[in-house]
Amino acid sequence: MASWKNLDTLQSFQELQKMENNVRLTEVMAGESGAARVAKYTVPMAGGLSYHYAAKKVDDTILSKLADLAKEAELTEKFAELYNGAVINTGEKRLVLHQLTRGQLGNPVIADGVDKFEFYKAQQKKIAEFAAKVHSGEITNEKGETFTTVVQIGIGGSDLGPRAIYLALENWAAANGLKKMDAKFISNVDPDDAVAVLNSVDVSRSLFIVVSKSGTTLETLTNELFVKDALEKAGLDVSKHMLAVTSETSPMAKNSGYLAAFFMDDYIGGRYSSSSAVGGAVLSLAFGPEVFARFLDGMAAEDKLATEQDPLKNPAMLDALIGVYERNILGYAVTALLPYSQALSRFPAHLQQADMESNGKSVNRFGEPVNYKTGPVLFGEPGTNGQHSFYQLLHQGTDIIPLQFIGFKKSQTEKDVEVQGSTSQIKLGANVAAQMVAFACGKQDENPNKNFDGDRPSSFIIGEQLTPEACGALLSHFENKIMFQGFLWNVNSFDQEGVQLGKVLAKRVLAHDTDGALKAFSDLLGI
Amino acid sequence: MASWKNLDTLQSFQELQKMENNVRLTEVMAGESGAARVAKYTVPMAGGLSYHYAAKKVDDTILSKLADLAKEAELTEKFAELYNGAVINTGEKRLVLHQLTRGQLGNPVIADGVDKFEFYKAQQKKIAEFAAKVHSGEITNEKGETFTTVVQIGIGGSDLGPRAIYLALENWAAANGLKKMDAKFISNVDPDDAVAVLNSVDVSRSLFIVVSKSGTTLETLTNELFVKDALEKAGLDVSKHMLAVTSETSPMAKNSGYLAAFFMDDYIGGRYSSSSAVGGAVLSLAFGPEVFARFLDGMAAEDKLATEQDPLKNPAMLDALIGVYERNILGYAVTALLPYSQALSRFPAHLQQADMESNGKSVNRFGEPVNYKTGPVLFGEPGTNGQHSFYQLLHQGTDIIPLQFIGFKKSQTEKDVEVQGSTSQIKLGANVAAQMVAFACGKQDENPNKNFDGDRPSSFIIGEQLTPEACGALLSHFENKIMFQGFLWNVNSFDQEGVQLGKVLAKRVLAHDTDGALKAFSDLLGI
Repeated sequence: MASWKNLDTLQSFQELQKMENNVRLTEVMAGESGAARVAKYTVPMAGGLSYHYAAKKVDDTILSKLADLAKEAELTEKFAELYNGAVINTGEKRLVLHQLTRGQLGNPVIADGVDKFEFYKAQQKKIAEFAAKVHSGEITNEKGETFTTVVQIGIGGSDLGPRAIYLALENWAAANGLKKMDAKFISNVDPDDAVAVLNSVDVSRSLFIVVSKSGTTLETLTNELFVKDALEKAGLDVSKHMLAVTSETSPMAKNSGYLAAFFMDDYIGGRYSSSSAVGGAVLSLAFGPEVFARFLDGMAAEDKLATEQDPLKNPAMLDALIGVYERNILGYAVTALLPYSQALSRFPAHLQQADMESNGKSVNRFGEPVNYKTGPVLFGEPGTNGQHSFYQLLHQGTDIIPLQFIGFKKSQTEKDVEVQGSTSQIKLGANVAAQMVAFACGKQDENPNKNFDGDRPSSFIIGEQLTPEACGALLSHFENKIMFQGFLWNVNSFDQEGVQLGKVLAKRVLAHDTDGALKAFSDLLGI
Repeated sequence: MASWKNLDTLQSFQELQKMENNVRLTEVMAGESGAARVAKYTVPMAGGLSYHYAAKKVDDTILSKLADLAKEAELTEKFAELYNGAVINTGEKRLVLHQLTRGQLGNPVIADGVDKFEFYKAQQKKIAEFAAKVHSGEITNEKGETFTTVVQIGIGGSDLGPRAIYLALENWAAANGLKKMDAKFISNVDPDDAVAVLNSVDVSRSLFIVVSKSGTTLETLTNELFVKDALEKAGLDVSKHMLAVTSETSPMAKNSGYLAAFFMDDYIGGRYSSSSAVGGAVLSLAFGPEVFARFLDGMAAEDKLATEQDPLKNPAMLDALIGVYERNILGYAVTALLPYSQALSRFPAHLQQADMESNGKSVNRFGEPVNYKTGPVLFGEPGTNGQHSFYQLLHQGTDIIPLQFIGFKKSQTEKDVEVQGSTSQIKLGANVAAQMVAFACGKQDENPNKNFDGDRPSSFIIGEQLTPEACGALLSHFENKIMFQGFLWNVNSFDQEGVQLGKVLAKRVLAHDTDGALKAFSDLLGI
């Protein structure tokens, strides 16, 4: 059994605090030293990706101490406990099994009387068979017409991850003749969201997937009724258009109001559910089950790398360690995620949830306040767009923001034009390479307004092309990074008690059981 | 002439630093005291909006000192210098005239030999006449068919603002029978962006607006050629489909390759250009010039409020002062913008540029390093979605993030369903009211995991409905807030030298003129 200790009680962390911690990127990334670092500071990932950390403020001495920290914090042992079925989510007393949806890293995990790996696999098989019938025209609408669109109704983890992955693979799938259906998403309780999506689809040829683990998420049930209302008004048979993704014990399971139900369970948190039926149903319908299987293969291969003891061979663990070094030794409060791929436009929003909801905690696993900073704020937009927006602050602002770049050698559609001697894809690559060096090395200028101090750290994940495997490897990398950081901070990354108070107070407003400021704000809103 | 001094040299700021600065929201926002604050701490805005700051960590004493600061920093005088045509953008030696695109607050401003207010008005008139001809079918494609779609090709300020406003008003316009054309946007140099947009439209019935002040923005010219290539391959007459928004001196002006050209100038920065031809052309085509005129009216009315001396009557100035108090006295590094309106989904991305590119600076207007923090990181997503995502960290994380909520009494389409006794719009309002109180007041719990410390500050802009006027007022509020904060920090909010180094290095990569780390990264990307 691993022992769970606060970060600041670990000897290797205390030693790190006492070290010089002054690697100057303006020096080490200059000239041939920079080229040597780029060649050396890299780890292969799955899906044709590699993780590069030459432009991080680390050197061999610091890396060696971070490896000590990984060992002392027993990161590998804790991960093994997790995938072997320990109760890692101590707050809610639950196992944490999302990795099992894409592979089995350890022993069989039996819970609720079943082998959970087999359970998740069976759900995927059920989804694959259902999707194949929809695509072949065996399952149709009431008029015998094929379904052309799938609409996911869910919020938080039931929305952000599947939406980000759909957008990540939509153009790749279309370019490769693998796009089967359009997918749309309804998430917000704002009625304008549902109205806009419903106006944009032919409801008679749409399948709607209602995603709620508990079957009681208010936003989702409200939007479900919005959709049913629209189907009824169009004179359609509601039960021929509705699917459920839920837990076996929810009121949505075994309910004749749904054409089919696919199951997840309490061992998979919403923000880690993209590889379960939550992502599986919508993505298998949109792209076919084979594409979703390739995405899971990428995740599984990347998960396997996360079991490596040596952080220099384990990109997720290394990324996690450097992140903690930046947060707790160098004192940086924010991280920016900057994919140089338009297809990853909503990937930062998904990782924003995955990261901030997991590690935005002030108490440790035992409920004791911690004396150090935990999860940073994470934000991001695709490059090159961000370059023409908030990069000004990243380059010349008063705070240093560590950056995570992502880029690919090839575009997804491989359609391109050559302007001024280069393709757009080459220009895209030139920009990300240039930014890495600009942030690290800066540039002295007599005009202080044009001066760049540099020494602003970044890492870089480089891939061949954003394929389903690469997309899966990318997501797994960040999921596992977040997990390792949670282990280091000694927090429970798998509950989210911080979202409860707002829910309780919102119910009071709806019940008109308010006083003081709550009543005053409700009055202002005409409630 | 106002005198430009660093924030930390101002006596009222030094006095603020010495004050107690310990307003506890858990106390002042509780019970009847909270209700009284909500009633008292509010300022009317234009467009049916009002700004509420009851849940900010201020009291009458601090507000009075902030008013002293406003006076000592000569905020009103500086704004008057700006709108009367002083060279406020000292770095680039330019006037700053974006407010003139929607109204004239001071004396006529003559530059380049013309009255600039008349110049901008003339451009809007030209756009309005052009748009009317497109809508009436007087201007058509080569087959005599009407245009159904307008595609904006631009990046940064030519993209984010117009896109955010288009999304903000699209459903409102459709619900009110005012939507004339679909609008799409191509921004990223990533070829997959242009390919995806071109696949989603009928190019034969699309107008393309190329937006580049200089006429030399590489991303935009590249995407323009992408589009021309697609038009040529479809056998269409390119010049019948292309419009230009540019400056009169650019190579795109007076160019027979465009059906029409509309002009902006160097006195309007990209991130402040939504109210110029940059936003005017695409929005007037999409919704008709009358809707765009209503948007400008909302901006003009809100600009007028920003001329008020008394910050308690000037919402933008008050918001700016409280923001500086949070950044430089309380030490908060990040701000979150949380609109409870799906239509404002990209409004945070636009304000992220407007704010971070304007005030993410480390030197003052005279090029001297400043000894205090300037612009914070700004991020945000619409509620209720964010509640199911990163709110965990906002509630229970180790850093305090000030929040800016936005909400409306009515939805845009006014289509709604009643579930469990309330409409979706009422649920949306209940959630934002609940969050304000949850963040401010917290909740004691024996289980430390379920404990909420509270005392997390937020403000709230409440409106009747997100109409064009309200949207304009909202944008003007934030533009002017950013301007006042720039005055307080004594930075030049109107240049962006921090984006230059990356451009220079990217050109070197494209010319294969690289060495060291730049060559190594380029090699990895196959360049």
